[in-house]
Amino acid sequence: MIVLSVGSASSSPIVVVFSVALLLFYFSETSLGAPCPINGLPIVRNISDLPQDNYGRPGLSHMTVAGSVLHGMKEVEIWLQTFAPGSETPIHRHSCEEVFVVLKGSGTLYLAETHGNFPGKPIEFPIFANSTIHIPINDAHQVKNTGHEDLQVLVIISRPPIKIFIYEDWFMPHTAARLKFPYYWDEQCIQESQKDEL
Amino acid sequence: MIVLSVGSASSSPIVVVFSVALLLFYFSETSLGAPCPINGLPIVRNISDLPQDNYGRPGLSHMTVAGSVLHGMKEVEIWLQTFAPGSETPIHRHSCEEVFVVLKGSGTLYLAETHGNFPGKPIEFPIFANSTIHIPINDAHQVKNTGHEDLQVLVIISRPPIKIFIYEDWFMPHTAARLKFPYYWDEQCIQESQKDEL
Repeated sequence: MIVLSVGSASSSPIVVVFSVALLLFYFSETSLGAPCPINGLPIVRNISDLPQDNYGRPGLSHMTVAGSVLHGMKEVEIWLQTFAPGSETPIHRHSCEEVFVVLKGSGTLYLAETHGNFPGKPIEFPIFANSTIHIPINDAHQVKNTGHEDLQVLVIISRPPIKIFIYEDWFMPHTAARLKFPYYWDEQCIQESQKDEL
Repeated sequence: MIVLSVGSASSSPIVVVFSVALLLFYFSETSLGAPCPINGLPIVRNISDLPQDNYGRPGLSHMTVAGSVLHGMKEVEIWLQTFAPGSETPIHRHSCEEVFVVLKGSGTLYLAETHGNFPGKPIEFPIFANSTIHIPINDAHQVKNTGHEDLQVLVIISRPPIKIFIYEDWFMPHTAARLKFPYYWDEQCIQESQKDEL
């Protein structure tokens, strides 16, 4: 119906503009290369073809391999992230399970296992290719590429989309950590869904 | 207390045997190389050090990277599996989310998307290194190494431990598929937990 209405000789300019907008939205939702291809997700996809971005964080490459907001996953979400030497995640916590599988490179996991009013000085764990890491729920942590080559990790989380609380430093009170939701890579598609419902 | 009681000069043989058994159980639970190391799981582990087995399936190497029964995960579970050329999973279904990330090699995913009384002839999808696959919930499927080198995949599932229904062929009724629970790699540790509670 949308397609048929476009270009109809009897349409007013407002109807045409609205129809074109809907048409563009329709194709953005169904096209495989679109940023938010939740409908018609192919069973098998080439990870090399997935969109990647640094979301304003120099040295980061993030791809959502299988996502909640992007692909309709309900219970797990998987990212492929590459950190250039020196780059890092924010200090953050989340109330979901998280497991890393390190595919390439090396780095350091900083993990504050204390349970006071603030994270406190973290413990440092070397991470390396072919290692796996599990983050205890709600513990503040940070991953940094402290090596000399790219650090590439698969990240698996439960309860997507992720709700992340960000700390400015290790001594910031837990209650002052700032909730960033939707997270950077979920923002665009959550907004598109909201627009769709208006 | 257990350690102190072992070897006490006043102990009866029954007490000594019981104490040794408890001591062995204690070390089997806390040792890192134990098959069911649910307690004291290190934050970072070398995947190369994890136990692997074929669980009676020639050509398979299975490692539970982060598991429910083995490691205490509640919401996600991750396996690293390698299939020699010609080897395959059973035809099976499960009511959890499942995502594959193909690390090496190539093969074929057979997926029956039909929703009749039995799976029916499956659709074949080529899978290849650097591809990702999502299995629709409850669809019968099978992964086979149809290539000439090892096929290595990371498998992520939700709702662990996995409950798998196995089909003998693609035309077996859904209701006749056999539930295998606990699954092969969870059997040993579920049994140990049960013994602990007796």
